[in-house]
Amino acid sequence: MKPTTASFVTGLRCLLCNTTFENGNLHTCPKCGVQGILDVQYDYDAIGTVLSSAALSGRPFDHWRYRELLPISRDAVLPHLAVGGTPLYNVPQLAAAVGIHKMFLKDEGRNPTSSFKDRASSVGVLKAQEFGFNTISCASTGNAASSLAGLSAAVGLRSIIFVPERAPEPKVTQLLIFGATVVRVKGTYENAFELCREACRKFGWYDRNSGTNPFLVEGKKTAGLEIAEQFGATIPDWVVVSVGDGCTIGGIGKGLQEMRGLGFIDRMPRLLGVQAEGARPILDSFLSGKDLIPSSTNTIADSIAVGTPRNWRRAIQQIKASRGEMIAASDDEILDAMRLTARLGGVFGEPAGVAGVAGLKKAITQGLVKPGESAVVVITGNGLKDVQSAKLAVGQALDIEPDFRVLEKHLSELSLI
Amino acid sequence: MKPTTASFVTGLRCLLCNTTFENGNLHTCPKCGVQGILDVQYDYDAIGTVLSSAALSGRPFDHWRYRELLPISRDAVLPHLAVGGTPLYNVPQLAAAVGIHKMFLKDEGRNPTSSFKDRASSVGVLKAQEFGFNTISCASTGNAASSLAGLSAAVGLRSIIFVPERAPEPKVTQLLIFGATVVRVKGTYENAFELCREACRKFGWYDRNSGTNPFLVEGKKTAGLEIAEQFGATIPDWVVVSVGDGCTIGGIGKGLQEMRGLGFIDRMPRLLGVQAEGARPILDSFLSGKDLIPSSTNTIADSIAVGTPRNWRRAIQQIKASRGEMIAASDDEILDAMRLTARLGGVFGEPAGVAGVAGLKKAITQGLVKPGESAVVVITGNGLKDVQSAKLAVGQALDIEPDFRVLEKHLSELSLI
Repeated sequence: MKPTTASFVTGLRCLLCNTTFENGNLHTCPKCGVQGILDVQYDYDAIGTVLSSAALSGRPFDHWRYRELLPISRDAVLPHLAVGGTPLYNVPQLAAAVGIHKMFLKDEGRNPTSSFKDRASSVGVLKAQEFGFNTISCASTGNAASSLAGLSAAVGLRSIIFVPERAPEPKVTQLLIFGATVVRVKGTYENAFELCREACRKFGWYDRNSGTNPFLVEGKKTAGLEIAEQFGATIPDWVVVSVGDGCTIGGIGKGLQEMRGLGFIDRMPRLLGVQAEGARPILDSFLSGKDLIPSSTNTIADSIAVGTPRNWRRAIQQIKASRGEMIAASDDEILDAMRLTARLGGVFGEPAGVAGVAGLKKAITQGLVKPGESAVVVITGNGLKDVQSAKLAVGQALDIEPDFRVLEKHLSELSLI
Repeated sequence: MKPTTASFVTGLRCLLCNTTFENGNLHTCPKCGVQGILDVQYDYDAIGTVLSSAALSGRPFDHWRYRELLPISRDAVLPHLAVGGTPLYNVPQLAAAVGIHKMFLKDEGRNPTSSFKDRASSVGVLKAQEFGFNTISCASTGNAASSLAGLSAAVGLRSIIFVPERAPEPKVTQLLIFGATVVRVKGTYENAFELCREACRKFGWYDRNSGTNPFLVEGKKTAGLEIAEQFGATIPDWVVVSVGDGCTIGGIGKGLQEMRGLGFIDRMPRLLGVQAEGARPILDSFLSGKDLIPSSTNTIADSIAVGTPRNWRRAIQQIKASRGEMIAASDDEILDAMRLTARLGGVFGEPAGVAGVAGLKKAITQGLVKPGESAVVVITGNGLKDVQSAKLAVGQALDIEPDFRVLEKHLSELSLI
């Protein structure tokens, strides 16, 4: 399974100082330091001559179908796991409950390790191999970690993963089962992140932290590419994405822009970025117009509980470029969205995964989004990843003896018979 | 999304007395009672004139692509969830560890509610609607339940689900989030099953129990149809399936036979049915040639912990017709298979999901399967569904303070740096 085209990457551009560097094993900008997030640049004219609807129609529906738009070398052996190619659902009943004319869900919980992050990790492991590393590492609240563990297992890389102590147990178990070494740090995500970065530098591991690794966000971008290809001319008014570190919405925005440039869609949908009320530093920066101020975090949506987001500038740039908006949802609104999304949309998402539904509902109430518009919400992770939170959203099972009369009595009390 | 063809069903045939009944809302055979499992009959000649490779190539890759081979009415509104169309992986490293020349995994954990059972439930909810029911019910150790809850939510049916007290909490939470009423019965799967059957009869609910509902197994069959279509001429020597109630392997066997009849594959692969050592009544019947004797159960593989399987006759008929074999794997072998499948195959399966891998490995050791042969193992459910069992298969995370020297010391002790 080798891509048949050369890499179309032309360089790496700093989002802060705009300097462009040669493509290679760089992380942040050599001039600006950690604030200087690098963005992969491509020769879109050349890509346009190759990547047509006709070319795409013959390729498997996974995210490697957009390989010309990915920073992977032409002799890369692709992981065997089918990343991306996730379904898109039209959910009229959920739309009615949310208060919008037309609404779609893109279920990223259908990825190999059950979250959106597989898109990034699959590119990360290829870059690690291309640059000659045998160990890859990241700090993650959970999904990036399990995703990296799964993709590393698939390609035979060693993975060492730093998680904060709040990471839910199912996510930790998921990465242990893939054979990763797990370092659980007594502290916050930021503590885990700093320790991981230092370890990567000192031990010569490849750093998969998507906040500072320019290639990871290119993998995340493919959700935007897919949304554009799946909708084409019917692209909705809004693309709704939950926001933690800022990479996901930044990547999806970039993917949509690229597809607009290549003519797959004829207008850019507006991005609605949704943070949790208990972790909203990017929203605050978006509203104030000032540089981001790190905050503490307190939300059940652990996957977006990021107090010091690395990619806030990219997120805000993409949202503003799309004439988008940002909003925050409370934990109660997120739990309500979890029930609604499952009961009316048939999709069980984790708290961060359904935060977009909560934010869209709130944005309509506040007039940011109009009831007559259309929206697609990216459900970023499977609810099975965080059942403890889901338990907060549901009632109890009816515990009974195996006796029909007991059953009848209970059902009658509940007016179910 | 309406199927454009009429139903090709010609009747319902009893697997015990061979009498054929008119297609309709029947469960078991009116003559034989609960032992008389009914099998849906089709006009394969007519189907053959419609269902060609060319016809399939233009359809979405989900299990409705085989609609001519499904017992659904032509005006059925299909659920919006993308059921089936699961990926197939070539896993050479796992093959080497298992000791077989060539090995593939079919990851059924990628279904909408993360298990194989979505194939059956998606047909079940359509039959309930076709027959005019507004409530559907089943008894399940977990996956059939969560699957039914999700598919019911997707089509707007009310679901009432009976689970035994041993059902893992993530599975119970998953079905509560979909809005199902959950009746947790203090007793075994058999207690839950009997109570559910009685409730369906007395309260007029549609009975989705796949052991006795003839239409459910038709949904399960689609995994066999897909395997045949995905491999075509390269169909492996063995198709390996874990066995609880007997419906899954019975359905997959039927699907493979149909595809052989229609010319999509030119030979029938042999079925290897894998039970857990602690729940092996079908294996015992297969070996003795005598009628099944119900047993107690004791295994971590809760999805196949069935002491009184309803569809044992269908399972054994299909396995024998394929010149297949059966084997049992211990819990330790299942946990070992869980690690191997994740670390070398990149797929995290639940205990019953990876039991096939454990059974294949054992079957090679015992000479039932030859090392030079090829096999595809159906991974029936996502490991996130039963993290408690997965925890038994893994080691611990390394808990440390956020201090680089502490990290260095621990990694050094583990020879990781």
